[in-house]
Formats: sequence, structure tokens, C-alpha cells
Amino acid sequence: MEKVLNYIDNNKQRYQEELVEFLKIPSISDLPEHKADVLKAANWVANSLKEAGMENIRLEETPGHPIVYCDWLNAGEDKPTVLIYGHYDVQPVDPIDEWLTPPFEPTIKEDGKIYARGTSDDKGQLYVHVKALEALLKETGKLPVNVKVIFEGEEEAGSSNLDDFIESHKELLACDTVMISDTEWFADGLPSICYSLRGICFAEVTVTGPFQDLHSGTYGGAVDNPVNVLCTMLGKMKDEYGRITIPGFYDDVLELTEDERAGFKELPFDYAQYCDNLKIKETKGEHTFTTLEQTWARPSFDINGITGGFQGEGAKTIIPAKASAKFSMRLVPHQKAEDIANKVRYHLNAIAPPTVDVDVTILHGGDPVYVERKGEALNAAMEALEEAFKVKPVFMREGGSIPVTGTFQKVLNADPILFGLGLPGDNIHGPNENYDLANFHGGIKAAVLFLEKYGK
Amino acid sequence: MEKVLNYIDNNKQRYQEELVEFLKIPSISDLPEHKADVLKAANWVANSLKEAGMENIRLEETPGHPIVYCDWLNAGEDKPTVLIYGHYDVQPVDPIDEWLTPPFEPTIKEDGKIYARGTSDDKGQLYVHVKALEALLKETGKLPVNVKVIFEGEEEAGSSNLDDFIESHKELLACDTVMISDTEWFADGLPSICYSLRGICFAEVTVTGPFQDLHSGTYGGAVDNPVNVLCTMLGKMKDEYGRITIPGFYDDVLELTEDERAGFKELPFDYAQYCDNLKIKETKGEHTFTTLEQTWARPSFDINGITGGFQGEGAKTIIPAKASAKFSMRLVPHQKAEDIANKVRYHLNAIAPPTVDVDVTILHGGDPVYVERKGEALNAAMEALEEAFKVKPVFMREGGSIPVTGTFQKVLNADPILFGLGLPGDNIHGPNENYDLANFHGGIKAAVLFLEKYGK
Repeated sequence: MEKVLNYIDNNKQRYQEELVEFLKIPSISDLPEHKADVLKAANWVANSLKEAGMENIRLEETPGHPIVYCDWLNAGEDKPTVLIYGHYDVQPVDPIDEWLTPPFEPTIKEDGKIYARGTSDDKGQLYVHVKALEALLKETGKLPVNVKVIFEGEEEAGSSNLDDFIESHKELLACDTVMISDTEWFADGLPSICYSLRGICFAEVTVTGPFQDLHSGTYGGAVDNPVNVLCTMLGKMKDEYGRITIPGFYDDVLELTEDERAGFKELPFDYAQYCDNLKIKETKGEHTFTTLEQTWARPSFDINGITGGFQGEGAKTIIPAKASAKFSMRLVPHQKAEDIANKVRYHLNAIAPPTVDVDVTILHGGDPVYVERKGEALNAAMEALEEAFKVKPVFMREGGSIPVTGTFQKVLNADPILFGLGLPGDNIHGPNENYDLANFHGGIKAAVLFLEKYGK
Repeated sequence: MEKVLNYIDNNKQRYQEELVEFLKIPSISDLPEHKADVLKAANWVANSLKEAGMENIRLEETPGHPIVYCDWLNAGEDKPTVLIYGHYDVQPVDPIDEWLTPPFEPTIKEDGKIYARGTSDDKGQLYVHVKALEALLKETGKLPVNVKVIFEGEEEAGSSNLDDFIESHKELLACDTVMISDTEWFADGLPSICYSLRGICFAEVTVTGPFQDLHSGTYGGAVDNPVNVLCTMLGKMKDEYGRITIPGFYDDVLELTEDERAGFKELPFDYAQYCDNLKIKETKGEHTFTTLEQTWARPSFDINGITGGFQGEGAKTIIPAKASAKFSMRLVPHQKAEDIANKVRYHLNAIAPPTVDVDVTILHGGDPVYVERKGEALNAAMEALEEAFKVKPVFMREGGSIPVTGTFQKVLNADPILFGLGLPGDNIHGPNENYDLANFHGGIKAAVLFLEKYGK
């Protein structure tokens, strides 16, 4: 193992140079004009897996961007199989004016960080695993476990074809655990493993009143106003204690254990700093829960957008014919997106006044993810992080959703390890996205150590 | 008088032809590209006043479109003075596709109506008075009362310069009563005098939360959402009985008398037809009041437009940084726009949660109008309508606002007579605006009769 870790140290410079090459490809999956770039990135990463010594490398066509697959299955049947997931596509770069260096001209600055789109999300974290595989294969000629790799090119465009691919390739992807590096540590210098993600139910509600916009002078006071109605309905979705009022909404919520709550309390969370960073005076969450509990382990109800009536300059005195809002509920274990969709649809129709038509459309959903904090794979991951970074890792949860994680659990029956190697300041999806090269370098060692420990 | 009425009958054809000429001028005051047309209409109507025999005709410059003034003050000091108000500008023509005949090619159809923009609002109603003055002056060489005329060209653009003009020309405009034909009858064949208009307070409220849109996964459940807050605040502005919850809002509301309520009940109002026309199942107004009472004599609170967050196709899971809504309250006698503005501003700030910033901007206001249903001028108007149309006129109120009416009351201390000659089906501001030529012709007689009776 010493040998492999030395190899990583000796190749540090080359690894960074290769990462720079990878980052230069503007593989923005959501913009059609970058289709060729996405393909170029797929080929580039496939080639780097080949160079690393992986086998059966191929690009799997999808209706969208290709999926890169490869494996190395010579560790023996007594060894477990790890499926490594990552994505080689990136977010768009808007607002481009706010980038201090161009998003596709990777720049290493004095702070030891590399700045470019995709550095942290997810090319940098994905490439950690490619280089870990290379180090092991070059120095030892083999891997300590069986490894399968699946890198997709549509994560930033909704992973629209990945679920189908997993469903139709169950055997190809069969594994004991899924390694995912696409999240962040709780804080700088504090390696973290995420064991739960929230799910989501995203919906739109439309309220329709009179057949056209009406003069508010002539009709105001008698004809019910769809915008007023929408506000009244949505204004009632949470009570004064911040609890969501949809009947049955909390039925399946897994309550936090005392152990988890104690663990959260030990994390270095600074409430004043949190509010200050967001430029808010205070938060307003569900009564009796802390901020971390609210965002990690309690469901939410947020209106993501609302529209209705006159929105120009000046005044237009109408009763709008209709109004609509898009809203999403973040779900926690063991809520089910479909069940919540039914409940919210039923409730909104139930509280709709008879004066208007109310239509609820569910746009998409994803179940929450919960992984037991035990097992050989998880223990190996914890030990690997501690050994690589010399700090005892912490457990955390995430408020966001990575829908594919639930698919891996459901279809492959394999728990994911959310082996995130990003940092809170990476500014993913924003301008000046960056990645700490210390995490890149240490991450490669941690990935190697994980495979080695898991193989024992 | 017989002679004058005969003159009107004999000139029917010519009057219609002149009206057609007037309607052909696209005097859309709100569109800068029609500035020359508005001026052309001003000159056209000034010339027709001259032809009628009026004196001291002039175009008064304003920062916007000119005001046409003229008078005839030879009736003697013992006779009252009537100020006739009207507007020669018109609304834009959108949606142009829905016009069956072009808006500026006036077309008389078999139904006895003339179709064009401005037929009813207000060129047709304004021209009634020009022709009444002509008939009297041509046939008798004089008018039964002193008459001043003020026709503005900015009514459809907010009458932005008229208040200033009235304020600075108090003496020029001094009068005993103001004759305004710019409203509609309650029903076809039912001459009506309007004795009260609602006022308005138009405002905008903006709720600001975090410094930028946030990821609803990461922050949802803890960071208060400006759209949720806006909905909660606005959703509470009316209680379950349809009463507005702003403290002190109803303090100055003039309660309906039993006499008024009885009068409203006698009007031919068909609730089922009303709902059917608007394609709504039922109305929702203030408890214990009828639809007419709700729209004429009770205040309203309508959100005219709301906006916040993501409004495109698909899904974007954000907590929007801000949200805003424009809303208006229709006011009834004796509420004051300024008082209500203060109360709504205070209340919205009072119920704003500490998690967000709330800003309330008052965009404009206008006081309601109330005219006693008695006096010589009003009696003359009632008698004139009955004699001209052979039907006893009714009293009605209006839910809309004509802000200048309040200015006449306040600055000139003269009560207006809302001597509307339009019909409910005129479709003013909409496509296929039209005007019943029977009302045009009968209106000229009624206007003559009014002047004659008032002069007695």
C-alpha cells in the first residue's frame, strides 16, 4: 500500500495537468450547442480509464448523452464488487460576468485551489477515482475488489436516461455497494460521509377564475380573484409552528434518534455566520428543530415560483383570469414521493373554494435516501478518510436530492456510500467554481485506501 | 324646444357622418406613435365646437396632449354654469385579431350600432354634447345656461395633467355643475344616473429574503421563503366572511341606507346570467351583501399581479430571493385613499415576519365620489333622460373610478352629473367596441333637454 501511496505523490503534477485537460472541455449537458463537447468529454474519460488499466470500456448510447462504462472483475468471486458512479457533464456558466477567470481555462491560484466549471461538480471528484484505479493497477497490477464504473453525462440535465439504463442493465451493474463522490464535506478540513438525502415532490398548481382578466373596478368585491385564492391556499400550507398542514404529510417521517441529534449538535455549525452569509436576520423553520435538523431530516414546502396577472411597470387594475405556482416539497425517510404527490393533490383540491378551478400537476418526484451507518463498506470508507486526511470523519445528512442514489438502492439493492470530497466553498453551479487540490490529492489516496480496506 | 328637437331629427344623417369622421382618427393617447393623431383629434373637435357656435375656443398645451376648451357665457348671471367634460382620446386596439371590422374604419351594422374604437368611450358620448350645443345655438341663437367645455386627450393614459390644469384654472372652470357622459346605463333601454364611484388605492408590496436565490434542497425548511411569506401575508388580507382585515379599514365606510338597498334590488340584475357571462360557478364577496352592493358600495382588495422566482418551463428548485405583488383596494365613500394607503402600509409591515424585509409602495390613489341624489341639476338630468328616452331613469352606482370626478368636486366645489349614455354591451377597452346609434341620437336630445330644464 505504501508503494501505491508513493506513486500517487510522485504523479501529483501529472494528475493535475490531466485534470486541467479534462476541465477544458465545456461539456455542458443542458445546452444543445455543446453536444459535441459532451461526447468529447465522454471519450476523454473513457480513454483515461483505458490508460488506467480498466477493461471492457465502452460508451453506451442513450437518447441523450452517452454513459461511460468499464470494469475490472478479476479480484475473485470472494471479493465484493464496488460500482463507482460519477458524472462528466457540467452546469452552464451563467452569470459569466462574475467569473474572475474564464470557466473553461482552468487556473490554479495561490490558495491551492483550481478554478473552473466542473472542478468540484463533478469532474474533479470523478477523476479522483480514475486516478485511484490507475495507481493501484500500475503499482500492483490488480485491484483489491471487483470494480465497475458508470459515469453519466446528463446529471446536470436531470439524469433523464440513467434510471432506464440501470433498470435495463441490472446484471451488468450488479454490485455490493455504490461509491459516489458528488457531495461536500460539512466543513473545511472535516471529512464527512453523508448517510441520508432528502427526496422531492415537485408540482404546479393553477387556479382559474373568470374566462378573461376582468376590470377590478367593475367586478372587484364580488368575483373571486384567482391570485387572492392562490395566496390564501398556499399561505395555509404551513402553520404558525412551521409544520406543513397537508393531512397525513408526516405519517411516514422517520423521527430523528437522540443519537443523531447529538451527533448534529457536535458539528461546527455557526448560526450567526449562517444567517450572515445569506444576508438574513433569522431563519424560520419547524418549531423545536435545529437548523441542521430542519434542512437535513425534516420535510419542507417551498414555492419555487409564482406568477399571475399584470407584472409590468405601473398599474393595471385587473382581476387576473388565472394564477399559478410551482412548489416543491423536500421529503425525508421514509416518505414516498408518490404518496406525498397524492396527498398534496387531494389537499389542494379539498381546500379550493367553489369559485375557481384548481388544477394540480406533479412535475417530478424522487424518494429520499437513507443508509444505515454500519457495514463493511461504510466502515472501510470511514477508515480510509481518516487515514488519508488524518482527521476522524463525521456523519452528516444532506437537504438536497441525488435521485439516482435511490435508484441504485431500489434496482440494484446496493447501498450507496456518499463519499463526498467537495468543500462548502466550492461554489458549485455558481461562478468561480473551484476545488481544493489538497482534497483532490488526498481524495485519490482515500479512494485507494477504501478499495484496499474493503477488499480485506 | 320642439324646433330644436326637430333640428336634431333632421340632421341625424349628418351627425352620424361627422361621428364617423371623428372615429377615423386613431387618437390613442398612450402610444407615442399616435401623438400626431391625438393632436389631429383635438383640432377636429375644436373645429366642430367652433362650427357649433361656441366661443373662446382654444387648445391648452400640457406636458402631454392638449386640452380643448371653449365656452358660451351669454345666458346671464342669473343662469347657472355647466361645465361639460369628455375625452377625445381612445384606448389601444389590442387584441387586433379579434376585431370583426377594423377599429378605425367605423362600420354601421344592421343592429343599429356603430363599431369602432372610441364609439362609446368616449368620442360618441362626447359628440352628443357638441351636437346638442350646435342644435340649440343654430335654432335659437343661444343656450339656456352658461356653458364651458373641457375635453381632454389623456383620459386613457391616466389623465396625468388634468388635475394640475384644473387646479391652476379654477376661475376659468368655475361652474355650478359638471356634466360627464363617460359611463353606461344599468341595462339596455334603462337610462341611468350614477351617483357614486369607488375610489382606489393601488400599491405594490415586495418581500426580500436571502441575498440571492438559494437551493431549496440545501436551505429548504430553515430559510424563510419570500414567496411563501408573501402568500401568507396576502392570504390573510380577507377573512372567511370576505371582510378585509386591515385594522381600521372600514372606519369611514358610508353604510348603505335601506332606501339604497331597496333601489338596487329593483334593478334587473340576473345573478345566474352574471356568473354565466364570466364563466364562473359563483361569486365570493363580503358576507350579507348582494353582488351589486359588493361591487358598488363595499370596498375590495384585489391582487392585480404577483411575481416571484422561477416562471419558466420545467422545474427549478429554488428559494427565490424575493417576491412582489401589485394590489389595489377599491374604496367607497367616505374612505380616503391617503388614509387607506397609510393603514395598508402599516398593517403589512406589522404582520411581516422578522425573517424578511417588506417594502410597501403606494403607486397611486383616488378618492371615491358620492353625489347627493337631489338638486336642480340632478332633477333636470333625470327629467331630460325620461323625456328623451320615454323611460323613467334609475339611480345606480359604479364599482370603477373616474378620478377627475373627485377633483371637480374638491377643486371646483361642483358636483358632477354622471350622465352616462353607454350600454353594458359596448365593450369599451375591448375588441369590437360599439355604440348604439339610438343612444347617440336620443342622447343629443337628452343633452339639449337637460340644458333647457336646468336653465329654467
